Amino acid sequence: MKRPFVTLDKIREIIKEHPTPFHIYDEAGIRKNARALLDAFSWNKGFREYFAVKATPTPGILKILQEEGCGVDCSSYTELMLAEACGFSGSDIMFSSNVTPPEEYQYADRLGAIINLDDFTHIDFLEKVTGHIPETICLRYNPGGDFVVTNEIMDTPAQAKYGMTYNQLEEGILKLSAMGAKNFGLHAFLASNTLSNDYYPTLARLMFETAVSLHEKTGQNITFINLSGGIGIPYRPDQKPNDIYAIGEGVRKAFEEIMVPAGLGNAAIFTELGRYMLAPFGCLVSTVIHKKHIYKEYVGLDACAVNLLRPAMYGAYHHITVLGKEEEPCDHMYDVTGSLCENNDKFAIDRMLPKIDIGDIVVIHDTGAHGFSMGYNYNGKLRSAEILLREDGSWELIRRAETPKDYFACLDVTGLFNFE
Amino acid sequence: MKRPFVTLDKIREIIKEHPTPFHIYDEAGIRKNARALLDAFSWNKGFREYFAVKATPTPGILKILQEEGCGVDCSSYTELMLAEACGFSGSDIMFSSNVTPPEEYQYADRLGAIINLDDFTHIDFLEKVTGHIPETICLRYNPGGDFVVTNEIMDTPAQAKYGMTYNQLEEGILKLSAMGAKNFGLHAFLASNTLSNDYYPTLARLMFETAVSLHEKTGQNITFINLSGGIGIPYRPDQKPNDIYAIGEGVRKAFEEIMVPAGLGNAAIFTELGRYMLAPFGCLVSTVIHKKHIYKEYVGLDACAVNLLRPAMYGAYHHITVLGKEEEPCDHMYDVTGSLCENNDKFAIDRMLPKIDIGDIVVIHDTGAHGFSMGYNYNGKLRSAEILLREDGSWELIRRAETPKDYFACLDVTGLFNFE
Repeated sequence: MKRPFVTLDKIREIIKEHPTPFHIYDEAGIRKNARALLDAFSWNKGFREYFAVKATPTPGILKILQEEGCGVDCSSYTELMLAEACGFSGSDIMFSSNVTPPEEYQYADRLGAIINLDDFTHIDFLEKVTGHIPETICLRYNPGGDFVVTNEIMDTPAQAKYGMTYNQLEEGILKLSAMGAKNFGLHAFLASNTLSNDYYPTLARLMFETAVSLHEKTGQNITFINLSGGIGIPYRPDQKPNDIYAIGEGVRKAFEEIMVPAGLGNAAIFTELGRYMLAPFGCLVSTVIHKKHIYKEYVGLDACAVNLLRPAMYGAYHHITVLGKEEEPCDHMYDVTGSLCENNDKFAIDRMLPKIDIGDIVVIHDTGAHGFSMGYNYNGKLRSAEILLREDGSWELIRRAETPKDYFACLDVTGLFNFE
Repeated sequence: MKRPFVTLDKIREIIKEHPTPFHIYDEAGIRKNARALLDAFSWNKGFREYFAVKATPTPGILKILQEEGCGVDCSSYTELMLAEACGFSGSDIMFSSNVTPPEEYQYADRLGAIINLDDFTHIDFLEKVTGHIPETICLRYNPGGDFVVTNEIMDTPAQAKYGMTYNQLEEGILKLSAMGAKNFGLHAFLASNTLSNDYYPTLARLMFETAVSLHEKTGQNITFINLSGGIGIPYRPDQKPNDIYAIGEGVRKAFEEIMVPAGLGNAAIFTELGRYMLAPFGCLVSTVIHKKHIYKEYVGLDACAVNLLRPAMYGAYHHITVLGKEEEPCDHMYDVTGSLCENNDKFAIDRMLPKIDIGDIVVIHDTGAHGFSMGYNYNGKLRSAEILLREDGSWELIRRAETPKDYFACLDVTGLFNFE
């Protein structure tokens, strides 16, 4: 059973200053989880987690992960700006982009970030736009075909726009080496939100074998393997969470079997987790403002798909708790909706919940990653605030809610809106 | 065959001042299309189109439609602000919302907008929050079941969160009448983006029969029928466009058969078209910045799903023209992608196009509605500018592109970004 990390009393205290809807994050949970990850991979001396900024591009969150020793995985110009503003620099930053414009490589290079090349043609492009090839560089691998883990196809890399073929990796390392690169990393992202403890070990095995083969063929040193993201979280209450220690141990075994005998035992393991690091430690808090009975029973929230797009975009499940009614029987079936003029603006369809009344406060779980960050402004709706629940029980506004002035900012060329 | 409304020369001229990507709109096309709609419904004295602001919430566009005699259909607080700023007021504005907070009804009431009630409980709610019931009011109908047009199920109203049942309409009109309402409208939206000339006439027949029945049962006057949106456009080049004159004539026939004999021949027809009014008259202009060969051939644009979410969200087809290569054979197969770290960020999959080179400028068609307005900021990408191509061939910036300062605006509470 999923329990919110925040109480009704605490939410009521916050609402006095910041009306719903808002996302709230759990500092204690974020830290505990980050420490478990580091512990599970502590067998690897160079291990580092590069948090996927796109999941939660919020300084108040990045600072916590920074204190826990994480770096950041950036994919765009503004994500690099965010990293710099938070004090990340050099090898704290992994820059994993695709279809990359010159100014992004130039900025990543100025920050000394580790650049993860998505494509073979980007080798020449990078040198052209930055004037050099860095000593340490990463190449993204796409093995093609299907990616199968314990008889289950996790994804189809052959259909993915990312990465290079094996031959491109080999040729790329030789080319980069001739251009001055000395330390090489390999990166692959082959599945999203997996709930199998075998995903990372299977991926690691593939990457380690690839690393050994490339090391032997090119004579170059492979100094890190970036397993990227893909470790998922149980959005549904009946799903079993990953065991991060089993995952770490699985990767260790493959490392000992493949990398160590090949003389690559000094290679570091990197991860670029987003969802695993943050999703369970954020939730969307919203107030019930409407109930409706027609052919079905509807509950209408003051939040909508603008605040959480995953249900509308992917049909994704997010668990819902009615605060203060945790012990009541879930004997009412509702569609839980937002206010967009889009019928996909439903947080839940045919969901069994306790009897809901107008004014009830609901928690939509697991919005800590790809929640706020995927928000849009459809129907002119404004994005919410983000609040951090501190370990000591105090709370802090880490992003204010949008105002109409923000929404209309780019219309200043029309002279129609005067907010001063 | 789809042809862009803008030439390569014109685009090159614009790019000198505003780099791609941007959306551009065709004033001449918008006006011609709006006039045809008004002409097709000119048999109805009170006919009015209320443009669905959510499709293209841009003053430079709303002003053109205003000059053509259109009103606006608003669904939120900021859309009402936009309407007011553009000089719409009173019955120029239809307010069609759902899960409505008090301040939205209060604002709509202050503007004298026609309020379209989505739910029976909103009758009491509206009176409570505004202190009165307006003389003219609209009720949204949901007939339940499936909505079938010429043997094809267009949608399933029983699963839609919108509107009231027939019994609620009847009870609602009596109740509103007792509270002071005198003129009643009926509204229904039962299908989106239809390409059948029979959709509107079939819907109109249903609405007219409902109006007559309610008129007879309640003794109240039904002064308008709001057919809402749903008339689609041919996104694919092999699709046949709607014939707006056939549609207008189909609605007229149903009106003559049903409304006139029942003494409701003075009722006005309203529409709330968005896509039909704007989609074909906007396009997204983007530059090819990357080509990639792995297991498939990829072309990477400087635009991404942030600028046009429909392909990623719905798998929607948008036609693509490579400017200057209109006459070349489409003998190359590409996936056309954006730069998001999301594999669904593809504008086209396995699309046959002319041979594409880096630096080519492509036009992604039919983005004039639900294009810019559905944009998000995922991966920290910024939303584009909007440009209006005037009838005389000149052009005007009607919304500037976002800057990092805009993107980080709500982080001013952190003190981390200083753009002054």
